[in-house]
Amino acid sequence: MNSPSERPVFIHGGVVVNDDREWRADVLVEGGVVKAVGLDLNVPSDALRLDATGKFVLPGGIDTHTHMQLPFMGTVAADDFDIGTQAAVAGGTTMILDFVIPQKGQSLLEAYDQWKQWADPKVNCDYSFHVAVTWWSDQVADEMKVLAEERGVNSFKMFMAYKGVFMLEDDKLFHAFTRCKELGALPQVHAENGHLVAEGQKKMLELGICGPEGHLMSRPEEVEAEATHRAITIADQVNVPIYIVHVMSKGAANKVVDARQRGKLVYGEPIAAGLGTDGSHCWHHDWRHAAAYVMGPPLRPDPTTKDHLMRLLASGDLQTVGTDNCTFNANQKALGKDDFTRIPNGLNGTEDRMSIVWTKGVATGFVGVTSSNAARIFNIYPRKGRIEVGADADIVIWDGDAKRTISAKTHHHAVDFNIFEGMEVQGVAVTTLVRGRVVWRDGELVPAQGWGRYVPRPCWGPAFGSVAQRDAQRALYHQPVKREPYAGPVIQL
Amino acid sequence: MNSPSERPVFIHGGVVVNDDREWRADVLVEGGVVKAVGLDLNVPSDALRLDATGKFVLPGGIDTHTHMQLPFMGTVAADDFDIGTQAAVAGGTTMILDFVIPQKGQSLLEAYDQWKQWADPKVNCDYSFHVAVTWWSDQVADEMKVLAEERGVNSFKMFMAYKGVFMLEDDKLFHAFTRCKELGALPQVHAENGHLVAEGQKKMLELGICGPEGHLMSRPEEVEAEATHRAITIADQVNVPIYIVHVMSKGAANKVVDARQRGKLVYGEPIAAGLGTDGSHCWHHDWRHAAAYVMGPPLRPDPTTKDHLMRLLASGDLQTVGTDNCTFNANQKALGKDDFTRIPNGLNGTEDRMSIVWTKGVATGFVGVTSSNAARIFNIYPRKGRIEVGADADIVIWDGDAKRTISAKTHHHAVDFNIFEGMEVQGVAVTTLVRGRVVWRDGELVPAQGWGRYVPRPCWGPAFGSVAQRDAQRALYHQPVKREPYAGPVIQL
Amino acid sequence: MNSPSERPVFIHGGVVVNDDREWRADVLVEGGVVKAVGLDLNVPSDALRLDATGKFVLPGGIDTHTHMQLPFMGTVAADDFDIGTQAAVAGGTTMILDFVIPQKGQSLLEAYDQWKQWADPKVNCDYSFHVAVTWWSDQVADEMKVLAEERGVNSFKMFMAYKGVFMLEDDKLFHAFTRCKELGALPQVHAENGHLVAEGQKKMLELGICGPEGHLMSRPEEVEAEATHRAITIADQVNVPIYIVHVMSKGAANKVVDARQRGKLVYGEPIAAGLGTDGSHCWHHDWRHAAAYVMGPPLRPDPTTKDHLMRLLASGDLQTVGTDNCTFNANQKALGKDDFTRIPNGLNGTEDRMSIVWTKGVATGFVGVTSSNAARIFNIYPRKGRIEVGADADIVIWDGDAKRTISAKTHHHAVDFNIFEGMEVQGVAVTTLVRGRVVWRDGELVPAQGWGRYVPRPCWGPAFGSVAQRDAQRALYHQPVKREPYAGPVIQL
Amino acid sequence: MNSPSERPVFIHGGVVVNDDREWRADVLVEGGVVKAVGLDLNVPSDALRLDATGKFVLPGGIDTHTHMQLPFMGTVAADDFDIGTQAAVAGGTTMILDFVIPQKGQSLLEAYDQWKQWADPKVNCDYSFHVAVTWWSDQVADEMKVLAEERGVNSFKMFMAYKGVFMLEDDKLFHAFTRCKELGALPQVHAENGHLVAEGQKKMLELGICGPEGHLMSRPEEVEAEATHRAITIADQVNVPIYIVHVMSKGAANKVVDARQRGKLVYGEPIAAGLGTDGSHCWHHDWRHAAAYVMGPPLRPDPTTKDHLMRLLASGDLQTVGTDNCTFNANQKALGKDDFTRIPNGLNGTEDRMSIVWTKGVATGFVGVTSSNAARIFNIYPRKGRIEVGADADIVIWDGDAKRTISAKTHHHAVDFNIFEGMEVQGVAVTTLVRGRVVWRDGELVPAQGWGRYVPRPCWGPAFGSVAQRDAQRALYHQPVKREPYAGPVIQL
Repeated sequence: MNSPSERPVFIHGGVVVNDDREWRADVLVEGGVVKAVGLDLNVPSDALRLDATGKFVLPGGIDTHTHMQLPFMGTVAADDFDIGTQAAVAGGTTMILDFVIPQKGQSLLEAYDQWKQWADPKVNCDYSFHVAVTWWSDQVADEMKVLAEERGVNSFKMFMAYKGVFMLEDDKLFHAFTRCKELGALPQVHAENGHLVAEGQKKMLELGICGPEGHLMSRPEEVEAEATHRAITIADQVNVPIYIVHVMSKGAANKVVDARQRGKLVYGEPIAAGLGTDGSHCWHHDWRHAAAYVMGPPLRPDPTTKDHLMRLLASGDLQTVGTDNCTFNANQKALGKDDFTRIPNGLNGTEDRMSIVWTKGVATGFVGVTSSNAARIFNIYPRKGRIEVGADADIVIWDGDAKRTISAKTHHHAVDFNIFEGMEVQGVAVTTLVRGRVVWRDGELVPAQGWGRYVPRPCWGPAFGSVAQRDAQRALYHQPVKREPYAGPVIQL
Repeated sequence: MNSPSERPVFIHGGVVVNDDREWRADVLVEGGVVKAVGLDLNVPSDALRLDATGKFVLPGGIDTHTHMQLPFMGTVAADDFDIGTQAAVAGGTTMILDFVIPQKGQSLLEAYDQWKQWADPKVNCDYSFHVAVTWWSDQVADEMKVLAEERGVNSFKMFMAYKGVFMLEDDKLFHAFTRCKELGALPQVHAENGHLVAEGQKKMLELGICGPEGHLMSRPEEVEAEATHRAITIADQVNVPIYIVHVMSKGAANKVVDARQRGKLVYGEPIAAGLGTDGSHCWHHDWRHAAAYVMGPPLRPDPTTKDHLMRLLASGDLQTVGTDNCTFNANQKALGKDDFTRIPNGLNGTEDRMSIVWTKGVATGFVGVTSSNAARIFNIYPRKGRIEVGADADIVIWDGDAKRTISAKTHHHAVDFNIFEGMEVQGVAVTTLVRGRVVWRDGELVPAQGWGRYVPRPCWGPAFGSVAQRDAQRALYHQPVKREPYAGPVIQL
Repeated sequence: MNSPSERPVFIHGGVVVNDDREWRADVLVEGGVVKAVGLDLNVPSDALRLDATGKFVLPGGIDTHTHMQLPFMGTVAADDFDIGTQAAVAGGTTMILDFVIPQKGQSLLEAYDQWKQWADPKVNCDYSFHVAVTWWSDQVADEMKVLAEERGVNSFKMFMAYKGVFMLEDDKLFHAFTRCKELGALPQVHAENGHLVAEGQKKMLELGICGPEGHLMSRPEEVEAEATHRAITIADQVNVPIYIVHVMSKGAANKVVDARQRGKLVYGEPIAAGLGTDGSHCWHHDWRHAAAYVMGPPLRPDPTTKDHLMRLLASGDLQTVGTDNCTFNANQKALGKDDFTRIPNGLNGTEDRMSIVWTKGVATGFVGVTSSNAARIFNIYPRKGRIEVGADADIVIWDGDAKRTISAKTHHHAVDFNIFEGMEVQGVAVTTLVRGRVVWRDGELVPAQGWGRYVPRPCWGPAFGSVAQRDAQRALYHQPVKREPYAGPVIQL
Repeated sequence: MNSPSERPVFIHGGVVVNDDREWRADVLVEGGVVKAVGLDLNVPSDALRLDATGKFVLPGGIDTHTHMQLPFMGTVAADDFDIGTQAAVAGGTTMILDFVIPQKGQSLLEAYDQWKQWADPKVNCDYSFHVAVTWWSDQVADEMKVLAEERGVNSFKMFMAYKGVFMLEDDKLFHAFTRCKELGALPQVHAENGHLVAEGQKKMLELGICGPEGHLMSRPEEVEAEATHRAITIADQVNVPIYIVHVMSKGAANKVVDARQRGKLVYGEPIAAGLGTDGSHCWHHDWRHAAAYVMGPPLRPDPTTKDHLMRLLASGDLQTVGTDNCTFNANQKALGKDDFTRIPNGLNGTEDRMSIVWTKGVATGFVGVTSSNAARIFNIYPRKGRIEVGADADIVIWDGDAKRTISAKTHHHAVDFNIFEGMEVQGVAVTTLVRGRVVWRDGELVPAQGWGRYVPRPCWGPAFGSVAQRDAQRALYHQPVKREPYAGPVIQL
């Protein structure tokens, strides 16, 4: 069988939008890549013609943060790599960055292989892996090198929460960040103070608060802001850029912003859930509803959080939008029906991410925050994240005026609940192409299981652009004073 | 022999200054306390008459942070409780708050008794003890209770630095803070990230930087700011006020300020060294000079730090001024002549503290930041920190126009170096009374060894004023949602 | 008839609270002043005994901002000096600071005399006058001097809003502030950008928005924050302290806070309305209700404003609490029934001010923000603002646990609406004394019309404490460089 | 004669850098535009071959702020459009944005024509005009429309300083900004409070401070920050983006940053002088030297200003770099030899701008801040500001390692002084092309007088991207409440 991408595609009539501009242009795709962008193109007669009149033609979205079929808290995430990536492309996202999460003590390479084996036969769109560093040893350091140099992994995530499970203390963080720097890889953190989370959980259970609301009470935003600030400080001591995954609160976001203004190298990633809804749902009278919103760090009860995060995306102070898509059905969430600390953490987002950002109004910068910035930070630009000649034909035809109402009844996730249920969003993916192949069209999925490819990401990406210069400046400062040795008496010990 | 305080003292002609106002008034002292304040007082014929014409009559200073004769880093601080308190009264300070620092594993009570035994026979002015919590166990918690309820200790200090020696991790800090709250005692922290300090020290030594400048390079102000923010966060989770000892940098000070504005209960204490000099001296070509400025957290190389701290004192955003007086002679500092990590940390300040604050210009608020605020925070007000009928007659006659030049040649410390050497300060203590006894007059010490008394400080001071209300507010929030139990299926584990 | 204050008063059993501490003490009042504070007092047999057991004994409140019987916008405020001060004492306030507001072009002295003539025969409590500078000329400057030196006026208010009526442009503000500095008087500003207000009003009317909500839309908080920042900047150029009346928004409050941290001399006064309610009422479906909340600068629709302002009072970043009490009945408000710009601006507050602050929770610092800070800033301390021997016996016996529900049906104002209607507050004035005379007791007013006295306030109060020092520092900076004159060619013009 | 750009140019061996990435590529130029970018290009045999091996190939710089041959303060700027643009291309800048500045009362169109007539025959590189609005009337509003729609002017500058000359009060600013919005043009401001400047000047002269240092003393950075904040506030009320020209101080920069984070549409432009030197030179003992640094708003004496501004460029919080190039020889500056207020304001920068930014270290983002951002903001992107097929061949071959020492002896300006004299910079323009023509090569100018073209800039650029959406949001808020009319009594007036 010929590759489904061999037939050329001609997208005509639309407004092409890259993150630096927009203009009326047609796009010709051949062999999975963009062949031409402009007007009056020479179109092969066999080309599939897609009419984009009145619509935008965007680089496909990149979801920087997913957990498909993650084994977690005694169960496995409902969206596997097949269904999860179906949801992605249905929403205009053409690449996901998922996380390999080794158990404490497990070989990182072994875990990587396991995850890749899960993903490869299933993915409907391209993907890549961040790898979590959940423990520390020479072996871990060695395997990070192999992953970075031979497996295309240029980002490693460390947990500051999940005490006793994944949490690394500050000295371990320092070592892991240092290793990242040596490899030219980007350290990422889940930023919550795990000690305080543990104390908070204990306190809430003692107070008899066992429901989902206890999850939020036990880890307020100060606990996230603290860890965010600490992670940035540690990374700054190492002089390595740092990427904060799932920035969930004003407090944490402000730490990112403040640090950037003081010249620190830091990136912040809010997620669709944090931009589109809030944590007040965890007080819902229906346990099932409330539990559906449990994730870590929690969605915040403060309803103004989402606008704050959106403003910081618009001003460039936050950079990317992920989802932490990690879905569990009610019967899975129910593992924590008597104890919120046992509710599997996670919720949906991959399908609705782009519509939410569009609706909430990053009127300028949409392509940047949903695609191009991620491609640059994770060093796969302009192959991904841009429509230009030679780039992968990951493209979405986007109707900026169309509206749809989100519902679990119609979504393309495996999970039985949607945290945005009933929300009317504006901005709809009409057609989605992954490397030139149409995988979503007019509201219908075009099955493409296994069509996605693992995208290796080289180290030493642009996030490292100024690191050498900064090291040099520090080296100038880190000079010993030339002095006569002290020649006086010394007290006897 | 009659008590030297039995003779009445009449201070006439001066301007009395309390922290809320100043006015022309005479002061009559009898029996160690203030008997009358005003004009046309009825003065006993045998009263010692002190002329304060053209001068201010102030409540004696309270140095919130000293380490007299501290055994530390292989030696013992040069200023003992006798000489150290001579220096204090020579500068207008009539009370010191010193620290009992048990070794890791040592009984707190045993250490307290040891320290008290050292101090009682020697002190020339009143004093009290903060007690350090350098390890954690049930015994420690129990002894904190005894200290709080039976020994008059209402403040306990925890170290976030000195990894492997005194440092407590976040969970231990949480427990210690919680214990303080139960007792109505104020937790204090030395705020530096000990993990980062250790890594920084290792790095500097590897770079061949062994001199005093390495001390500053190894623990930049971000490392202090990080821990300051973390300590405030932990205390806020506990809902207990927190007192940051030796705020040494803009970064750390700003964390205090930001937290206060967000409604957190936090106090910040800069020290005389940080207000009067800076860390650039550690680059001095003479090792002896450079080493004299080594303390932790370090003085900062940024010369604008002192003005920043002074402004925050003036605006009420920082509250007290200590000294961390902990002096070591050159031959003691020389223990670290080849390795800055072994230089005993500490410097002088007690004698010059008040002159430096006066000179640098807290024109309004002088009495507050040098005396009254400390008395209130540590709950000995208005017995200390105010001139009014019934208060202890801890009084300094202060010449606001007189100048003196600081020098080790003339100072009253035991140490052979003064970090303010050559600095001309304005504002001089002319006469100092401790509980009605003249201990310093016209540039001469009047020996009073052992005259000082230990001042027990009751718990539940004004710092706790709003804690109950805050707890009540949180309790309103920490309510479980009433719901039907989840009755659906649960996946099998 | 003997003066009603000639009978001694003995207040026993209570907890006396000054702004620096609280303690169990009885208070003896004779001749209108405090005679003794303590236990075991020698009480004259004819003394009126007031039982304060279980209650607090506080310095009477000082409302820093009222407009009794103000002629304004075509009508006259409903609360005159009699009824307005009845409301004051019913709420525990024993002194008001009202504003003399000359018309543009009118003699300040003439206006002062007019106002004093209105007040003297009516006031039930002590009072003083700020005087507004609503235009600028040599005559104004001259009269300011007379007012300051001969009439006891140490504060002058300038308007940055009310374009064409009271508004002064920046150069006039500069001159007025400079004049204040020469006199040792405190400049105050109504801080809103009058140009932007005028444009906003025009726009709203053009949009067909004529109701009270248009008042808020036409002058959003940015407009207030802008003028606040500008006023602080101008005052700083003059080097004179500045007092911002009615700080109504987060934005404006944050400008005050930021300036204080940068060392500027600035005071901020939120008002009872801003602490107890918000501007959302202006959208009320009943015009009468909506109009009742119209004042300038407006109450803000943001419901989190009040907590923000309260936090800043608690942290000392804002200092006093006024009311802008300026009441208009519905038939007066109705002057603007078709045009919000004609609705007389003003609302109630004097009676409820202290209860609202108590309820909203400045648990510590209550006496400071309701009384002592005002007394110090306006230089009548400790005669006012403190319970101590010799001070005016302006005292309120305060039940901190009692609750009452605010209502126009029961309030002591002349106006037919109360903006706090239905709000249950905690903290009730049980008994109020003005200079030793009981004017409110157990829920009943004791008529005292004309008992109040005008309190002259001397210039050069503590707000000026550091001005000379600051001037000296600037003078050091403002030194010409000594140079050879330029001797080269100059182009011909 | 054939156009000098008709010969193709082939730049080979270099690393092409656009603001979103860099990569090894050759560039082929034909007909003044980029024909191809990549490897293995098909190069015409007659092409001029430029070897860029080991060097960067950058979009030519855009200096957003120049005043060539400006008639000002009684004289005319020394750099005319010929020499000024020679200096530009010698430094790698291929386009300047100069200002048309009509006299008060003068027709804007007439001034525009005058300026264009001056420029066209002289310019060595492309250029465009901002037009100043120095007075306000219907005529001005009408002419703005003509300029915007027929002359390609999409940016208008208003002065908040120069009282009595160019200064507009707030209501005029509001009208001018509103007009800009109607036209889709970007308002720009010179942000200093002109009233305070005037008062400051008067004060300094009264103090006998007549030298250049008086210029800085008379208008400290608070005066700039105030106006910056005010301009942003006014623009926000209008809902139009605002561009702050010459951001000279930390204070002003921080206002820009704060506003951006609160979601305001604001751009900030530091200038080369502010990034490379500081105002301490105005205290120089040689009047000639001191006067050379006089510009408005002044360079600041705080030497840490430059790093602060550079950090904000790097973090994206400031966007562009101009120069305010407006040079005067010593004999011109000497017009103010006895009175600093008469020293013609201005200094050099155009030639050294790019080298200074490179040296000071915007390691990432160099192309953005020196070229692409300006092209986007002023809506001439990607014709300018990017190397890609179809763009104007404005290209600089940049040696990032080469160093040169700046000196008036070697610079290409007409002026007899260089404010960066003696400064060694890294990063040198080796070859500069303007629309395909080599105008600078290996340290030699290639005369191209008149080669430059006026670049018309269409309105409604990307800065307006979110304005409509914001207007719509406000319109939702600006809704009258539907109510029954007030039917009660109204007091009689």
